[in-house]
Amino acid sequence: MPTISERGLQMPSSPIRKLAPLARAAKQEGVKVYRLNIGQPDLPTPQKGLDALKTIDRKTLEYSPSEGLESFRNTLTGYYAKFGLDVHPDEIIVTAGGSEAILLTFLACMNPGDEMIMTEPGYANYISFAVTAGIHVKAVTSHIEDGFALPPVEAFEEAITPRTRAILLCNPNNPTGYVYSREELQKIKEIVRKYDLYLFSDEVYREFVYTDEPYLSALNLGLDQNVILIDSVSKRYSECGIRVGMIVTRNRLVRDTVMKYCQARLSPPLLGQIVAEASTVGTEAYSKACFEEYKARRDFFIKRLNQIPGVFSPMPHGAFYTVASLPVADAEEFCRWCLTDFRYENQTIMMAPAAGFYRDPDLGRNQVRMAYVLKIEDLDRALTVLEKALEVYNSR
Amino acid sequence: MPTISERGLQMPSSPIRKLAPLARAAKQEGVKVYRLNIGQPDLPTPQKGLDALKTIDRKTLEYSPSEGLESFRNTLTGYYAKFGLDVHPDEIIVTAGGSEAILLTFLACMNPGDEMIMTEPGYANYISFAVTAGIHVKAVTSHIEDGFALPPVEAFEEAITPRTRAILLCNPNNPTGYVYSREELQKIKEIVRKYDLYLFSDEVYREFVYTDEPYLSALNLGLDQNVILIDSVSKRYSECGIRVGMIVTRNRLVRDTVMKYCQARLSPPLLGQIVAEASTVGTEAYSKACFEEYKARRDFFIKRLNQIPGVFSPMPHGAFYTVASLPVADAEEFCRWCLTDFRYENQTIMMAPAAGFYRDPDLGRNQVRMAYVLKIEDLDRALTVLEKALEVYNSR
Repeated sequence: MPTISERGLQMPSSPIRKLAPLARAAKQEGVKVYRLNIGQPDLPTPQKGLDALKTIDRKTLEYSPSEGLESFRNTLTGYYAKFGLDVHPDEIIVTAGGSEAILLTFLACMNPGDEMIMTEPGYANYISFAVTAGIHVKAVTSHIEDGFALPPVEAFEEAITPRTRAILLCNPNNPTGYVYSREELQKIKEIVRKYDLYLFSDEVYREFVYTDEPYLSALNLGLDQNVILIDSVSKRYSECGIRVGMIVTRNRLVRDTVMKYCQARLSPPLLGQIVAEASTVGTEAYSKACFEEYKARRDFFIKRLNQIPGVFSPMPHGAFYTVASLPVADAEEFCRWCLTDFRYENQTIMMAPAAGFYRDPDLGRNQVRMAYVLKIEDLDRALTVLEKALEVYNSR
Repeated sequence: MPTISERGLQMPSSPIRKLAPLARAAKQEGVKVYRLNIGQPDLPTPQKGLDALKTIDRKTLEYSPSEGLESFRNTLTGYYAKFGLDVHPDEIIVTAGGSEAILLTFLACMNPGDEMIMTEPGYANYISFAVTAGIHVKAVTSHIEDGFALPPVEAFEEAITPRTRAILLCNPNNPTGYVYSREELQKIKEIVRKYDLYLFSDEVYREFVYTDEPYLSALNLGLDQNVILIDSVSKRYSECGIRVGMIVTRNRLVRDTVMKYCQARLSPPLLGQIVAEASTVGTEAYSKACFEEYKARRDFFIKRLNQIPGVFSPMPHGAFYTVASLPVADAEEFCRWCLTDFRYENQTIMMAPAAGFYRDPDLGRNQVRMAYVLKIEDLDRALTVLEKALEVYNSR
C-alpha cells in the first residue's frame, strides 16, 4: 500500500470542524447542539439572490470565464466604490470562495520555504493553506488581555528574515473580532514598504465594523503593487455555500500569475456568481439589517459571556467572533466533553478550541473561539448551557 | 515591488484557453468563431437539474459538509452501481469539479519532488496541477500513427525511478479519445502492483465509449488501496459551470488526508451539488440521447476531417476529442493566424494547439486538439472553414 504524503501528514485538522463527528453523534441521540464553532450565519440569504436562481434561463450551465463573469466583476466595482475603493473590473479575479483566493495568492506570490508573518491567534485555515503551499508561517502573538490588538511593530520586524515575503492581516479579524486602527495600519504600511513585502489583507468582514471610525482598507494604503485583497461574499450575504470569493489587486503580474492557476481549474462556480451578483445590487437595506442584528448579538453575547464565573472575553469591534478564556486547563478536552458527556435539559454546546488558531502549542490552551451567528434567544440559551457545563466540569 | 513566485513563473498557460483573447477580439469584430478548442458541450443540462434550482426552498445558502452533501453521495452510489462499481457513500468525497479532485489527490499522495508518470499527449491541466504541487511529470509518449494506444509496458518501466509514486491514466482519454483495452489495463495493474504505486484514474468520460467492449474502471482492477478515481459530472450532464467533481477511493488514509484539505477549503459548491444530484437520478434517456449525439458527431467529424488534404486524425473510441495532425509546421502559429488574420465568409475556427499537451517540446508541433462539441451542421461548417484556412495559409 503506497504511503500518503509528508505534507498531507503535516496538514492540520480544522479546529473549527474536527469535532463535527462528535456533534453529529450527539444530534443523532436527539440532543440539541448549539453551534458556536463555525461562522455559518443563520441569517437568510438576500431574497434577490435566491430569486436569481428561479429566473436562470440558460439551457446549459456552462463554464464561466476563468476570471469570473464580466457582469459580476462590473457589479463589484460599484460595491467597492461604496467603501471608497476605486477598483477596475480587470483588477478583480473571482475565486471559489475566499479559500481559493488565499491559496492562489500564496502560490502566486511565494515559493516553498518562504516565510509569511501573521498574527496569532489567526484564522486556522491560513496555516492549512500555507502548509499546502509549503510556506512557513511566523506568528506574532496578540494577547487576550490587550483585546488582541496588533502587536507592536517591533514584534513584526523581529520576525522578518531574508525569506520573509509577506505579511497577512485579517481585518476585521477572525477569530478575535479586532479591528485595526489607522495608526496600526500605517505602521504595517511602513514595514511593508521598508522590506518590500506583500501585504495580504483578508477583509471579508468589512461590513461588520461596530466602531464609528471610518474603515480603512489595505487597498487604500497607497501600496498598489504590494497589496492583495482577499474577499468573499459568503459572510456579508449569508451565502457561504455558493463558494464565491475574489482576489483584488492592482499588481498586474500577480493577476497574470493567479490567472494561470485559474485557467488550470477552469472556472469559478457559475451558479454562485449569479446569486452573488444579484445579492450585490440594491441590497443596502438587507446589509443594514444584518449589521444591526450582529451588533445587537455582540452586545448581548459579550456581556452575558463575561457574567459567567471565570470566563473572559474582550469586546470585539468587528466580524462575528470572539476568543474567550474559560476556567479550564484544556479547552479542547472541555469542548469534546461537552459534545460527548454533557447535556443540560438535553442540550449542549459546540465551540472551536482556540489552540488550533495559535502556532505556539503552549498558547490559547484555555481559550475557545465562538461565533455569534445564532439568534439572541439561542445565544442566551447556549451560554446558559456553557455556564452549567463549566460548573459540572469543574466539580467532577 | 515584490516579485512573483518561481513556481508561478513555471506554471504553463492553458493551451486550451490561452488564445481566448484573440477569439474575443475576433468576435468583437463581428466574426463568427467556431470553438473546437474547449470541451464545453453545447448540449443542454438535464431539465431535472435545471428544475432543481427553481425549487430550492432553503432560506440560507449555507456551507455543505466538507465531504459533500450526504444525499448526493448516496445518489452517486446508485450511479456507480450502473457501471458495475460497488462504492460506499463514505468512499466518495465531493470536490469543486474534477480540477480540485486532481489537485487534492496530488497533494495527499505525493511530496514535492516526487514523480508521476502519465501519457503524452495528455490533458494539459494535469501538468499545471503537478507544477502547483511540485510534482515532476514523466511522460510516456503515445503516437498518432498508433491511434494513441497505450505505450508498451516497457516504456512505463523505463520511466520508473525511486521517486516514482504514481501513474495517471485518463480513460477514455482527453485529448486523444483513446479507450484503454482490458489487456492494457491489466498490464498497468501489474506495474502498479509490482512497484506499489498509486494509480490515478480520471474517468470523467466513461459515459462516452463508442466500442462494444464493456467498460473497465480502474476501481474494478482489484487494487483497492492503490486506486484513486477522479470523476466529475461536468461532461456527462453538460454542466461544467456548476463545479462538481469527486474523488472515489477505498484507501481510507488517502480519504482522511484529502479531507483535511477539504476542511481547509470548507465546502464544495452547494448549488452545484443540488443540480448534480437531480441530474443523476432518472436521466437515463437523457444520457442515451447525449451518447447517440456524440457518436453521430464523432462519425461525421472524423470522416470529414480526414477528407481535408494533409489532415490526419485517428478514430477516437471515447470522449469527444481528437488530436489531429495538420499540414503545417507550427500548429500554434496557424491557430493564432486563424483567429487574427483569416476569415471565410466572416467566420473562423478556434482550436487548441496540441504542443501544450506534450511534455517534450519537440512533439505535437503540427497537431491540434479538437472537441466535437458542436452540432453536426456547425462541425461541418467549421471544417469547411479549416479546409479553406489551410489552403490560404499554405499558399501565402
